[in-house]
Amino acid sequence: MELSDVRRHHLSVVLEHLVRNGARSRAAIAQDTGLTKATVSSLVADLLDRDLVEELDTPSAGRIGRPATDVAAAGHRVGALGLQIDVDEVAACVVDLTGEIRVVHRQVAGNRDVPASKVIARLRQVTARALTDAAALGIHCIGGTLALPGLVDPRSGTLFVAPNLHWFDADLNGLAGKLKLPAGFPIAVDNEANLAALAELRHGAGQHLSSFVHVSAGGGVGAGIVIDGRVLRGSHGFAGELGHVVVDPTGKPCACGARGCLETLLGSDAATPPTADDAVADALAAALRTVVHLVDPEAVVLGGTLAGLGDSFATRVAARLHDITLGARWHPCVVHRSLLGADAALVGAATAALDTLISDPTTVPLRASAQPA
Amino acid sequence: MELSDVRRHHLSVVLEHLVRNGARSRAAIAQDTGLTKATVSSLVADLLDRDLVEELDTPSAGRIGRPATDVAAAGHRVGALGLQIDVDEVAACVVDLTGEIRVVHRQVAGNRDVPASKVIARLRQVTARALTDAAALGIHCIGGTLALPGLVDPRSGTLFVAPNLHWFDADLNGLAGKLKLPAGFPIAVDNEANLAALAELRHGAGQHLSSFVHVSAGGGVGAGIVIDGRVLRGSHGFAGELGHVVVDPTGKPCACGARGCLETLLGSDAATPPTADDAVADALAAALRTVVHLVDPEAVVLGGTLAGLGDSFATRVAARLHDITLGARWHPCVVHRSLLGADAALVGAATAALDTLISDPTTVPLRASAQPA
Repeated sequence: MELSDVRRHHLSVVLEHLVRNGARSRAAIAQDTGLTKATVSSLVADLLDRDLVEELDTPSAGRIGRPATDVAAAGHRVGALGLQIDVDEVAACVVDLTGEIRVVHRQVAGNRDVPASKVIARLRQVTARALTDAAALGIHCIGGTLALPGLVDPRSGTLFVAPNLHWFDADLNGLAGKLKLPAGFPIAVDNEANLAALAELRHGAGQHLSSFVHVSAGGGVGAGIVIDGRVLRGSHGFAGELGHVVVDPTGKPCACGARGCLETLLGSDAATPPTADDAVADALAAALRTVVHLVDPEAVVLGGTLAGLGDSFATRVAARLHDITLGARWHPCVVHRSLLGADAALVGAATAALDTLISDPTTVPLRASAQPA
Repeated sequence: MELSDVRRHHLSVVLEHLVRNGARSRAAIAQDTGLTKATVSSLVADLLDRDLVEELDTPSAGRIGRPATDVAAAGHRVGALGLQIDVDEVAACVVDLTGEIRVVHRQVAGNRDVPASKVIARLRQVTARALTDAAALGIHCIGGTLALPGLVDPRSGTLFVAPNLHWFDADLNGLAGKLKLPAGFPIAVDNEANLAALAELRHGAGQHLSSFVHVSAGGGVGAGIVIDGRVLRGSHGFAGELGHVVVDPTGKPCACGARGCLETLLGSDAATPPTADDAVADALAAALRTVVHLVDPEAVVLGGTLAGLGDSFATRVAARLHDITLGARWHPCVVHRSLLGADAALVGAATAALDTLISDPTTVPLRASAQPA
């Protein structure tokens, strides 16, 4: 029998409910989701066959009559791979369905001007270590995402340009093979700033915000813009390039071709690494003023190396932003520090793969014994 | 009987279907929307009682058996009021459900530094003329929206600041009374640039685009950002303030307090009104570069006075934008001229009121005869 879209959607509803809200009985799931008990039983059976949920031994307390067996997302037994290539390192992590970071491997490496094939060989090493550790911990990895510091087309698997790596038009098709991942292992590519914002939305300072701008400074400077609880991708996946907002048109040349981009003041190529001084706060506020005027977010979240600059830096940025934005007198934009800091893009890469799983649990195959003959 | 949310939603689905797709039989509506024939008949009866749809005399051709009577949105008999206060004029229009502009009255008036009460008295005159004309044309006006050149809170009816009018914290509550509108006439307030983008989305250059940035130059310079077919409002309704993107930090002081904002180069306060010269195109492209980098729209639509600067100006802006944006080599941002030009905000104001009606047809009362005793 072919699964209909409706059933696929219902599988997603049940799995997401268990992931976000914890263990409960089939009857409770039916009540919470509005699905019938018979449908829920059938959906749970399907998810059990995919090893995405598990039955708990101890039923919920306080029930009258025959105790119902609770089911839960297989939180610690299912995970995804987060991979990252940045200017100064390659990294791999495994995040499980509960959102916990279970494994991290980083390798410091100067990747600028190094051919993609060589950098991917470096990434292969940390990836292999992460998968070995995951297997030892009994975590089944269902897929992964690679975070890249540039303009990416997630559909075609193309990295158009990563100015700080000096990469152009890198073809990342066949990435799973190049990384020697298991046959059929689904691996996507995406922009690191968008992934960092996703991580902050699910697990960090953005958990209770419906719209915010997450600024990631590291090798470069990028942003992820979250609107109504979703990361804004733009028409071609290019949204959020905050690093190339011009702060000083007479400033230093930027890798992008312009002068005085924010990135020339805050990126790793800046004369000095970003410090908590007033000039840096003012430059950042000048760029954020434009985002706030255009997108009107509830808050700005300072991520990457900016998260390490302390509360007084965040306060300074907020004060400066308050002085120079038009609506601040009525609705000032709040400035938070990231909770995930330098890990955000890597965690976001794994989170994106888990989101893909949750939105379509049938991407994980049924156990052989459960498959139709 | 109280109308449930489901029924309200179904009324909206049927009305919107008829407005967007034209006349058809009840059976065809049922087929198109997935509602049952009995439900559609009941919904159509309700909409007939509210004078929002009408039965046509000539049934659809080509049917077998008893001919079904088609129903249609009462396109030319239902309309909304669009009002506008700008730096140099006040205006009122009536747009009907088909999207046609049926009535326009404008009054040239220097509104800057004039108290709100006096400007609203001017607006009252054009509003009265528009409503008289609408009545003579047999158009029932179901509500209206006032477009304002500043930061507006549509919920509280407050205009926080309109830099070019030099208005601060203008309380527009009781606006219907001040305009001497009929008792209970629903009137909203909104930002002119957002409304202009809405008009362009429904009836102009944005009809076939899912995301675009509409730039309105006139008294000031604003933008409406459309993402996935919806105008981005932001957390507080402040999104789209393109006019205050700094193009030249050493430039002329702007009414907002900063220096060298786009508005100092393109607004009516600029040294010369915007002309189709290269310096203006370059300044506009410099500000648009930032929007394109942050939001990644499919296209930019040049509106307001920019629409009158000709195709060669649009071509120059597109070429400059292509040269300076990071993703242009792979996905250049297209530049269109607005189809509505200086009328966009006014038409958008009426369109917003029609959208409110379509999203909840019960805002129009049942005829007395149809109301429960």
